[in-house]
Amino acid sequence: MKAVLTHIDDSLDARLEQLIDWVKIPSVSTDPGKKEAIRDAALHLERDLDAIGLETEILETPGHPCVYAEKQGPAGSPTVLFYGHYDVQPADPLDEWTTPPFEPVVRDGRLYGRGVADDKGQVHAQVKAIESLLETRGKLPVTVKLLIEGEEEIGSKHLEKLVRDHKSKLACDVVVISDTPMLAEGYPSLCLGLRGLAYGEIVVTGPRQDLHSGAFGGGVANPANVLASILSGLKNERGEITIPGFHDKVVPLTSGERKKLRDLPFDEKKWLALTGSPAVTGEEGYTTLERIWARPTLDVNGMLSGYTGPGAKTIVPATARAKISSRLVPNQDPHEILSLIEKRVLELAPPSVKVEFLRHHGGKPYLGPSSHPAFEAARKALATGFDTRAVEIREGGTIPVVPLFAEILEAPCVLMGFGLPDQNIHGPDENLRVSCYRGGIRSIAAFLDELPRTMSK
Amino acid sequence: MKAVLTHIDDSLDARLEQLIDWVKIPSVSTDPGKKEAIRDAALHLERDLDAIGLETEILETPGHPCVYAEKQGPAGSPTVLFYGHYDVQPADPLDEWTTPPFEPVVRDGRLYGRGVADDKGQVHAQVKAIESLLETRGKLPVTVKLLIEGEEEIGSKHLEKLVRDHKSKLACDVVVISDTPMLAEGYPSLCLGLRGLAYGEIVVTGPRQDLHSGAFGGGVANPANVLASILSGLKNERGEITIPGFHDKVVPLTSGERKKLRDLPFDEKKWLALTGSPAVTGEEGYTTLERIWARPTLDVNGMLSGYTGPGAKTIVPATARAKISSRLVPNQDPHEILSLIEKRVLELAPPSVKVEFLRHHGGKPYLGPSSHPAFEAARKALATGFDTRAVEIREGGTIPVVPLFAEILEAPCVLMGFGLPDQNIHGPDENLRVSCYRGGIRSIAAFLDELPRTMSK
Repeated sequence: MKAVLTHIDDSLDARLEQLIDWVKIPSVSTDPGKKEAIRDAALHLERDLDAIGLETEILETPGHPCVYAEKQGPAGSPTVLFYGHYDVQPADPLDEWTTPPFEPVVRDGRLYGRGVADDKGQVHAQVKAIESLLETRGKLPVTVKLLIEGEEEIGSKHLEKLVRDHKSKLACDVVVISDTPMLAEGYPSLCLGLRGLAYGEIVVTGPRQDLHSGAFGGGVANPANVLASILSGLKNERGEITIPGFHDKVVPLTSGERKKLRDLPFDEKKWLALTGSPAVTGEEGYTTLERIWARPTLDVNGMLSGYTGPGAKTIVPATARAKISSRLVPNQDPHEILSLIEKRVLELAPPSVKVEFLRHHGGKPYLGPSSHPAFEAARKALATGFDTRAVEIREGGTIPVVPLFAEILEAPCVLMGFGLPDQNIHGPDENLRVSCYRGGIRSIAAFLDELPRTMSK
Repeated sequence: MKAVLTHIDDSLDARLEQLIDWVKIPSVSTDPGKKEAIRDAALHLERDLDAIGLETEILETPGHPCVYAEKQGPAGSPTVLFYGHYDVQPADPLDEWTTPPFEPVVRDGRLYGRGVADDKGQVHAQVKAIESLLETRGKLPVTVKLLIEGEEEIGSKHLEKLVRDHKSKLACDVVVISDTPMLAEGYPSLCLGLRGLAYGEIVVTGPRQDLHSGAFGGGVANPANVLASILSGLKNERGEITIPGFHDKVVPLTSGERKKLRDLPFDEKKWLALTGSPAVTGEEGYTTLERIWARPTLDVNGMLSGYTGPGAKTIVPATARAKISSRLVPNQDPHEILSLIEKRVLELAPPSVKVEFLRHHGGKPYLGPSSHPAFEAARKALATGFDTRAVEIREGGTIPVVPLFAEILEAPCVLMGFGLPDQNIHGPDENLRVSCYRGGIRSIAAFLDELPRTMSK
């Protein structure tokens, strides 16, 4: 690996310039006016992959295209599928960027621009790792496949069908995704788990229209008061969700897992400062990392009823609505959880109002089989890439495609991302540390090198 | 009184035409573009009062003017102060009116137009009653004073100072207000009580800005969940307000009062149909009329937090707000009640969020001294005016100037209004039955005739 790593370091500046060229293409997937830029970004990547010697193909979808590429390794060697995305979030608000989002520049050791971290920079690191191996050795130690989509920021809505339709083409031993953050600078991180999501909406309807609160108040149910009661009936004062059956499928943390989480260099004060909240809080008996990574939640995401303008209006509102969602942990199922929430909400509803529960989207949680040899290879690779021991983390958010890949392709997903918590993805001044980009290329190359050995054990 | 009543009936059509001319003036007090129309409406009324032989005066305020008029009765006779307002609500939404709001027409026995019921039509009935007595007898049985303001629909904000400044000019034995509805058609109603109002707003602040519910959810307090808990902590499952001290000053209904309310011809099904709610409900142990007239409430009037657009957004909202108000009953005080609500809200607030309580406006409740001779005169007068026995009701809404008059002028307020519950005040197709307008003129004339007799007993 020494030659490969040296080559990566020697070519870093040139590759950063290539990344900059790619980031300049404003591939904002949600913007109908950027359709051409989206395709440009896909073709740009395809040319790059073709130039380094991979067989490439554009896989069309009813939406934005996927870029596919592959290169065979030695007979009998394992197959790695890289998944990532070339589409990016909108750059608004533009005036909060220090430099323009689509004119990337390096400043104080960080590359700034929309998509440098999420996810173009990390996909680029994967591609450049493959290139480095090929340039140094002329061949790859494993078979690699890449599936880089253009609709991740708008819900990956055509991905499931595409993966199912191309199941054999995408067949692999392990999926590698670089789209999760590191715990902190200096801590290369292997992400073992993701939370899932179950999202719904409570709609309480009382009178036909807003009523005068003097003429009618006290004689009919107030939908907003009822909504408040329903919501407060879903959790208790210890922060526990009290919906019957909600926790039935939760796989509890083992004492070993809890110890590992406690041992992580997690700076709670810094984390709290990031939120701006007055205090950490949550389900009693759990630490902050346990609460945000390994325990389910029930959060109101939005709430609306009656008059919300300036001053006062004396009405009994006709309706009250709340968007609510649960982050789920293994092995909770979003559909089951939505049914349990719905059942409880309707139980709590008095007959003096009409209560409906609407279902929005969901996503399954994921927990990687951390004893799988691919994870051993990843631990070693991150240590090589960053010259320090990797930590094992989880992520509180949801990446619905991860459990999807695991299920359809029957392969574990190794989540090793290279961004940092202050990378401002989805916000202004999105950035990627050059040292993380370097560490990413080195880690991926080391992973591909290591995998055949751990897999053959 | 026979000659007076005959004269009223004979001149009814001509007087309705005069009312129509007044209603045509769009005296919308909240609309800065209608300032001239407001003054026109005031001057129109002043000319009318002058023409029938009263001494008139415009009392200027920093806002819209008040019209004042008076005429002396026999030495030693009682003095009646009529209060009403010539300003009206905006007419929006215009396209929901069957005929234009400021082109009043009679249709199926009702006069339609903005302000025909609230309150020009009722003030007009008062004026025409005085005129009828003067035209028939050449003199009045009592001293009458009129104070007709132009800012009732925007909170009567200059009225308190004006009444205090002109306390001796306005000195009287009884205040008469015709701005409350009748219980139902065929039931002339003497309104004995009004509820008060205490209006505030709860603001819960958690994180500095909306947070990603995956990355942070479960680790910090969610302001919307907290708000729901606070709100549901203010009432119990029996519909009782559980704020300590809240009911301390409530004067309970006597068994006699409760019997009187039960005996009223109140059609609960019809009332419920008017609301469109699935069922009547409220504080356990009370009837609907007791709940809306004689028991305090705590209603959420508006609520806002986080994302309320279409679809889903996975955030922990930075803030959550609720406007809440209590209708009050004698002898609750709005300022005291706001303090008690604030105290309880802050007690219920966990340290993981910041909770503020903002105070909006309030108004005192009112309960007339129903054994005062003015009420006896009113009962007799309504029976004369409508040829049927009057019922005694209360009103769930708040008219802050009523307790104000009672307090400053140390006089009871007799509330006898002539509109019906379906009169659509503040809405499209506002209307006043011609029979109610007639009954109103007759009742006021009979009241002025009767008062010296009941007062001298």
